Amino acid sequence: MKKLKKGDSHVEKMRFTQENVNIFAEISGDSNPIHLNAEYAAQTPFGKPIVHGFFAGAVFSKVFGTQWPGEGTIYMFQDMAFKAPVFVEHDYYAKFEVLEVDEVKKRGVIQCVLEDANGKIAIIGQAKLMHTERF
Amino acid sequence: MKKLKKGDSHVEKMRFTQENVNIFAEISGDSNPIHLNAEYAAQTPFGKPIVHGFFAGAVFSKVFGTQWPGEGTIYMFQDMAFKAPVFVEHDYYAKFEVLEVDEVKKRGVIQCVLEDANGKIAIIGQAKLMHTERF
Repeated sequence: MKKLKKGDSHVEKMRFTQENVNIFAEISGDSNPIHLNAEYAAQTPFGKPIVHGFFAGAVFSKVFGTQWPGEGTIYMFQDMAFKAPVFVEHDYYAKFEVLEVDEVKKRGVIQCVLEDANGKIAIIGQAKLMHTERF
Repeated sequence: MKKLKKGDSHVEKMRFTQENVNIFAEISGDSNPIHLNAEYAAQTPFGKPIVHGFFAGAVFSKVFGTQWPGEGTIYMFQDMAFKAPVFVEHDYYAKFEVLEVDEVKKRGVIQCVLEDANGKIAIIGQAKLMHTERF
């Protein structure tokens, strides 16, 4: 399996459905109507329902655990700055870039961005991962 | 509504069920067997299925948005250091403490910890929130 190097990148296209947001609200207990109720959301500055930040950010975890670096990833740290709302039923891109690799400790620091189809950043942060084969 | 001050704290008892973890895997796409398959998990250093970090951390968001500070919270930032696995069907406590308040900008910095019944920390981090009435 090829090791990741500084500067390596990955992109994942995403779309969050209202149905999955409703399910996330149920299992997490976060039933804030801003996520669930279009009429309520229309009265807020956002104008329409937004995805829970932790459900939106979970795309980073999904990519790390299942694709890039992939199975065997140990998740050590993540930060997320919520810069703009993530709307349901819109296209988003999760973009990743390797910022640092420590080949001795088998660790990497990854820049993580979730942006809309116009390149507007919704979430930005960094992840710290360990993977014995890919760093 | 009473304003939060530096030093104010809140605790929420939690338990993550295997059923909800299975649902989270489905809606997030993070189908890593470490979360889903007890036989697979038994072969790993964890020994049993663990909760997705983003699903575990979502308890912070749930508390902020629905209880403390409550509805109207705007989530600006969260970091999470994953220090130990979060196991399904075990008791956990999400513990919160106000570290800083900016009454002019209506912002607060909150320490967030998810720990097990023995006080072992699984996730630790800080949140930055805005709430026009509670800071």
